[in-house]
Amino acid sequence: MAAAASSSLLAAASSSSRAAAVSTRRARANPAAASLPSPSRAPCAPLRASPARTLRSRVVASAAPAMQPPPASRVSTVVDVDLGDRSYPIYIGAGLLDEPDLLQRHVHGKRVLVVTNTTVAPLYLEKVTWALTHNNPNVSVESVILPDGEKYKDMDTLMKVFDKAVESRLDRRCTFVALGGGVIGDMCGFAAAAFLRGVNFIQIPTTLMAQVDSSVGGKTGINHPLGKNLIGAFYQPQCVLIDTETLNTLPDRELASGIAEVVKYGLIRDAPFFEWQEKNMPALLAREPSALAYAIKRSCENKAEVVAQDEKESGLRATLNLGHTFGHAIETGTGYGAWLHGEAVAAGTVMAADMSHRLGWIDESIKKRVIDILEKAKLPITPPEAMTVEKFKSIMAVDKKVADGLLRLILLKGPLGSCVFTGDYDRNALDETLRAFCNS
Amino acid sequence: MAAAASSSLLAAASSSSRAAAVSTRRARANPAAASLPSPSRAPCAPLRASPARTLRSRVVASAAPAMQPPPASRVSTVVDVDLGDRSYPIYIGAGLLDEPDLLQRHVHGKRVLVVTNTTVAPLYLEKVTWALTHNNPNVSVESVILPDGEKYKDMDTLMKVFDKAVESRLDRRCTFVALGGGVIGDMCGFAAAAFLRGVNFIQIPTTLMAQVDSSVGGKTGINHPLGKNLIGAFYQPQCVLIDTETLNTLPDRELASGIAEVVKYGLIRDAPFFEWQEKNMPALLAREPSALAYAIKRSCENKAEVVAQDEKESGLRATLNLGHTFGHAIETGTGYGAWLHGEAVAAGTVMAADMSHRLGWIDESIKKRVIDILEKAKLPITPPEAMTVEKFKSIMAVDKKVADGLLRLILLKGPLGSCVFTGDYDRNALDETLRAFCNS
Repeated sequence: MAAAASSSLLAAASSSSRAAAVSTRRARANPAAASLPSPSRAPCAPLRASPARTLRSRVVASAAPAMQPPPASRVSTVVDVDLGDRSYPIYIGAGLLDEPDLLQRHVHGKRVLVVTNTTVAPLYLEKVTWALTHNNPNVSVESVILPDGEKYKDMDTLMKVFDKAVESRLDRRCTFVALGGGVIGDMCGFAAAAFLRGVNFIQIPTTLMAQVDSSVGGKTGINHPLGKNLIGAFYQPQCVLIDTETLNTLPDRELASGIAEVVKYGLIRDAPFFEWQEKNMPALLAREPSALAYAIKRSCENKAEVVAQDEKESGLRATLNLGHTFGHAIETGTGYGAWLHGEAVAAGTVMAADMSHRLGWIDESIKKRVIDILEKAKLPITPPEAMTVEKFKSIMAVDKKVADGLLRLILLKGPLGSCVFTGDYDRNALDETLRAFCNS
Repeated sequence: MAAAASSSLLAAASSSSRAAAVSTRRARANPAAASLPSPSRAPCAPLRASPARTLRSRVVASAAPAMQPPPASRVSTVVDVDLGDRSYPIYIGAGLLDEPDLLQRHVHGKRVLVVTNTTVAPLYLEKVTWALTHNNPNVSVESVILPDGEKYKDMDTLMKVFDKAVESRLDRRCTFVALGGGVIGDMCGFAAAAFLRGVNFIQIPTTLMAQVDSSVGGKTGINHPLGKNLIGAFYQPQCVLIDTETLNTLPDRELASGIAEVVKYGLIRDAPFFEWQEKNMPALLAREPSALAYAIKRSCENKAEVVAQDEKESGLRATLNLGHTFGHAIETGTGYGAWLHGEAVAAGTVMAADMSHRLGWIDESIKKRVIDILEKAKLPITPPEAMTVEKFKSIMAVDKKVADGLLRLILLKGPLGSCVFTGDYDRNALDETLRAFCNS
């Protein structure tokens, strides 16, 4: 067990480490921006290569289509993901798809492939195509529209993206744009990583799940019939553009699914954020713009901080998978798409909290608060009946966090906002949790 | 045309730049090695992390299975590929598969998946399994045996590797071993890059083509029905182990195919090597061990030097593709596997030389020497009849070296051993070459 113990680490919230990892810039609409020195307007101007942070902030604040007077920008927040030469910004704001310059500055080359699905295409494909091409006649846009749903996150569907890219004769200077939820982002990102051994890509997440989690951090991939996300790549986008107005078309069930990941950030490393959620859950469910914007911003900050410290998941980053080992087993065991990802994660989070409590690592009050907040969000707190103890065990055995045969889990430990990633736990506690949540 | 011209570069041989990029260590069998200070014997000892080159050299010289007196090593040459934290050694020698320690020192974790094919498995799978497990009871070996041939370098066959890996419950600490020629190396490498978003892998090339070219440098991938190697990753192995004795079982046609790439290195950057080949072609075809060993060593040195300077092919590395744009078109246009890769490259190299001569960039004498040496090697010097001008053009349009619609080519320019990678050439010369080599 010594080897396992050495991989255990405490991921308590630490404001000092946060400050080092991420900078968040507020860039509210400001009429004064128009009088600032004019930023570069070259369509491919590499924002990340700008000499100083203050300049970057101004560039964003005065973002505007070329040939027009710069209107006040709608970008309310920029979260930087700090990964050296793979760093990139996350733009968050209402109506960002109405600002062509934001997207265009991150498109290199003349060809774009938008990857989207049958649900999102009728809503936003035209708008995104406009944003990419407005006052920008050099760029041409192709699109590929995939079937919608987790069950299509497979190799056959991925091949449709490659087919379209090859048939369109896209070259290494093209840019792939992921327009949709987590499935589209994961597939488009992996396609971009593998097409011609790597082309640029941009994330435009349109679900809360994708905005607060899957679009940030560069995990891409597809499912294998025997397990979630087993085939993929770490591959970072050029930018993430979150237009919070796209949430207006999101079904309630999808909104709740995203909230499961928001809750996760509070539990693993940000107790004040969890407490804010406990107070503001009704506002989130009612889609109050300011509440949603804050939840997205704080989630992206938390994710960016973790990813900046551990891009390839050698340790800390695994803590973002609280509840996910149980959750992935539910998704795989019930057939991809029967439960939404966040629904499975919610039940998995309760199971992780239950096991943490059985191990004596957290007080009962924390376990109760976990159940309460997920119930408030109208998320499931137990796995579906089809999940047996044996089903959980056999699927969890192929989880990516298994190392040399040992299943490592993210468990809560200590005060609210603290967790560990470890294989050093009493197996009986895992068995007891599985038996407590399964009928057979 | 200005943009294209800016990507043009001269890749003449330069002994000073070589010295900086690569170090080649001779480590001939030496009885004195046994009396040197004992190197670490930990099975996972990271050779690349050793503090000094002198120590590394000694470790290699005295490599031996644990629990046995160290015999004289058969490693005659180690070529280092210098890529910072992704650096790795290429071991070259006769009988290296009889030295378990060489392989075992690069296996991390307890699980190995050997990827091979129906031709190579009966010859070497048992030997490699022995080398991986001899005196090493902690390691268990699985294998997946794919059908043999370029036409199986596709997504369906790749999925068989993932299936085996998932069914065997391999985890992130496993190691994939590519045992075979270029197709196996490319597929196993891409599978290793994508499985669980990246696991370790080792190359054991068993064809001359793979030993002198495809196993070195980290290009991995599969073919798309419309073009070669369009889907893949840059992903470096832990080491490349070249046992030159495996060439004893290689068919003549496969041997000649590998020689096409050997000729390439001379033409693009190493005139003395080309002149050596002109004198020694009969010895190579007769498989004289010392001639083959020198050709492999010098080829690996050339490739390592180029890759160290331009891992992701932003410029210089493209010069390794002399003859390949025409060659890939032949492979795609005639159906993968009808011609061997080196056969297609040989005809493509003659076409590139012809075009270079039409442009006035090389003397006729160089073009003639290109044709002569490839004829001596019994390689084709014209494309197959099925290839029409239109077929060449339509397939070359999806080549990875197209940028913003402009096809860039590697062409010879200047004295022997010099080339350029450029899109700045007279289109008429390309048309004339295609018409000269095609019947319609």
